Amino acid sequence: MDPEAFLDVANQVIKLKMFPFFDIAHSLLAALAVREDLGANAQAFSRKHPLACWLSTMLVIFAGGMVANGLLGEPILAPLKNTGQLFVGTAVWYIVFYTPFDIGYKVAKFLPVKIVASAMKEIYRAKKVYDGVGHAAKLYPNAWIIMIIIGTLKGNGAGFTKLIERLIRGAWTPTAMEFMQPSFYTKASLLASIIFVLDKKTDWISAPHALVYFGIVIFLVYFKLSSILLGIHDPFLPLENLCCAIFFGGIWDSLAKILGRGQAKDGDSKDVKKSN
Amino acid sequence: MDPEAFLDVANQVIKLKMFPFFDIAHSLLAALAVREDLGANAQAFSRKHPLACWLSTMLVIFAGGMVANGLLGEPILAPLKNTGQLFVGTAVWYIVFYTPFDIGYKVAKFLPVKIVASAMKEIYRAKKVYDGVGHAAKLYPNAWIIMIIIGTLKGNGAGFTKLIERLIRGAWTPTAMEFMQPSFYTKASLLASIIFVLDKKTDWISAPHALVYFGIVIFLVYFKLSSILLGIHDPFLPLENLCCAIFFGGIWDSLAKILGRGQAKDGDSKDVKKSN
Amino acid sequence: MDPEAFLDVANQVIKLKMFPFFDIAHSLLAALAVREDLGANAQAFSRKHPLACWLSTMLVIFAGGMVANGLLGEPILAPLKNTGQLFVGTAVWYIVFYTPFDIGYKVAKFLPVKIVASAMKEIYRAKKVYDGVGHAAKLYPNAWIIMIIIGTLKGNGAGFTKLIERLIRGAWTPTAMEFMQPSFYTKASLLASIIFVLDKKTDWISAPHALVYFGIVIFLVYFKLSSILLGIHDPFLPLENLCCAIFFGGIWDSLAKILGRGQAKDGDSKDVKKSN
Repeated sequence: MDPEAFLDVANQVIKLKMFPFFDIAHSLLAALAVREDLGANAQAFSRKHPLACWLSTMLVIFAGGMVANGLLGEPILAPLKNTGQLFVGTAVWYIVFYTPFDIGYKVAKFLPVKIVASAMKEIYRAKKVYDGVGHAAKLYPNAWIIMIIIGTLKGNGAGFTKLIERLIRGAWTPTAMEFMQPSFYTKASLLASIIFVLDKKTDWISAPHALVYFGIVIFLVYFKLSSILLGIHDPFLPLENLCCAIFFGGIWDSLAKILGRGQAKDGDSKDVKKSN
Repeated sequence: MDPEAFLDVANQVIKLKMFPFFDIAHSLLAALAVREDLGANAQAFSRKHPLACWLSTMLVIFAGGMVANGLLGEPILAPLKNTGQLFVGTAVWYIVFYTPFDIGYKVAKFLPVKIVASAMKEIYRAKKVYDGVGHAAKLYPNAWIIMIIIGTLKGNGAGFTKLIERLIRGAWTPTAMEFMQPSFYTKASLLASIIFVLDKKTDWISAPHALVYFGIVIFLVYFKLSSILLGIHDPFLPLENLCCAIFFGGIWDSLAKILGRGQAKDGDSKDVKKSN
Repeated sequence: MDPEAFLDVANQVIKLKMFPFFDIAHSLLAALAVREDLGANAQAFSRKHPLACWLSTMLVIFAGGMVANGLLGEPILAPLKNTGQLFVGTAVWYIVFYTPFDIGYKVAKFLPVKIVASAMKEIYRAKKVYDGVGHAAKLYPNAWIIMIIIGTLKGNGAGFTKLIERLIRGAWTPTAMEFMQPSFYTKASLLASIIFVLDKKTDWISAPHALVYFGIVIFLVYFKLSSILLGIHDPFLPLENLCCAIFFGGIWDSLAKILGRGQAKDGDSKDVKKSN
């Protein structure tokens, strides 16, 4: 492909308008996620508790913006002022849960529909991460960590509000904490945030902004599609394991085990005693 | 009754000063609610954990303002700057929990006292919903949903903070979620918010503002009194059932059951399998 | 000691620079607290969930500022913009959890190190309470209760975020509520806040500001050291028991028991019945 044309496409992608089609795709996947999280009694639950059902779906749709606002001291409800998005979200929620004969849900679950929606959602995700990093950079120009946190939260807000979302529906699952087992989306959003911050704040990345953005979009869409079609769920795993082994004690623990077997045993038994 | 005089009364009601008498009534019912929520060990709990007891009572008293502030990006503690209200709340809390021979509690539980306090609290509730809608309208003039949410939260804040309030006292009841089974107060506050928003933002309601306000006050007081005296707890129920049947799948589900009995059965069994 | 020289020392203490040594001490004790809270499986947990481990340690380190900001409508993430503190915290966390052969942890647990760090942390605590009260006083010059709350939270923020901190690590302990059984640090911070408020807002304390501050520093350090070395954990207890007996029903309850034994029994049985 001609580099000129490639850059041109990249420039188009960065200017892509999100409303309404990308919002529809995002809302659709959010409503499906809520419905799947409810499991077998989704039908019954949606009939008995429409308010809780609607609220938790809205929370999933607007999660990123709400959490980021909450942490930045901005109004948590502000994302709801976007009437268009709210309307799209409500319409999609209604279609997924309440259409006669469950047509809406069946269509949404149809593989080609799901693939297109997922790809669009990843494009949307890249945009959100980018906007999140930019917004935080305006508020705290020197605090890289805040930019990265906000970018990650904007990219996968729903992962972090899962506890609250389930709580709205009367379920409490404290062990399902995103921080404990970050999903691929969280890790990808984290990586994208770090790249955007480096691109914004340093000279290490010499490529044009649009290209960096486009590269992240391609990365996100590619791995989403391979996750749906090929079942590859976490390409970060080998990297992570390596990192854990080097930095977070893996190698040293093994060394300690080999060198000071007796000593380690003593330490262990002391620990156990204390906890009793 | 003469319409002129009626409008006059309405204008008086809208200008009614809330401090201190309505605050006393509100605090009294809040303290009673905390004490009743504690059940049989209220006496013992209040002796052992005065701090938790005071904090949870304050949270109930100031719930609406705190939650609304939290969601609008305003200081959550700001309602506490109202020294008068805080003082009244603390005094009432003390009287309900710690008077010798439990006189305060017994007087507060006395039916006529409770009726008067309840009626006053409903007048206060109308005022809070009205103020909440007005405040949100100033911040987001076009976001109806935010006005309605804030109005509802101001009207029945304690319902939504119940989980936190109990958590302060060391109890955790995730299934007691207001969204799952909204109480009459939540529904009434929601209705009042919607009416205030329509009155404010559209021309659909031609009556004078004061009359609309007065109508809602009468509605709230009337149903509160019938709830205490006659045991009618939720006049919205028939309306809700109708609404659920038409919009939230009731009719279609029945139709689907009749038409596609075999199909539905298949779907059910598939769902069940997936959840196993 | 010469009063002049004493005041001189007090003036020095009030101007003490906190970064980086006091931050190191504070972070060290925070990381140790997290590690001890994890119990016997701290080693394993830190290897499996480094992100959750890091996040919960950061939450403990920055708890006071974050909670106070959250309640005052300021950005919750703002404390993280202090890159130096964040770097110190991360380095200390790494040393405590991941040094080869656990050297870092063993050194940190060494009594003299712990004593010095604890004493420094108490000096830091006094500073935080003082800053918290001052900050709240700027925002709400007349709301004493807000100043006291913010001062207390700044002084012992980690106590109040324990639930969230554990939740990040996938553990949920709703009964471990600070409000139910306030620790010595909370009570000491509360007392310090009240004294600072009185010193700031009234003429009741005639001593110079620096002396009041220095007195609180000495008080905090003294009781911390006696807690570590002598095992005196709560010097407030006798005072509290007295207070509870006088104000929170102790005496009256005993009186009621003696005077109206039959009556009290009736009331009890009625309560029990209702709760069944």
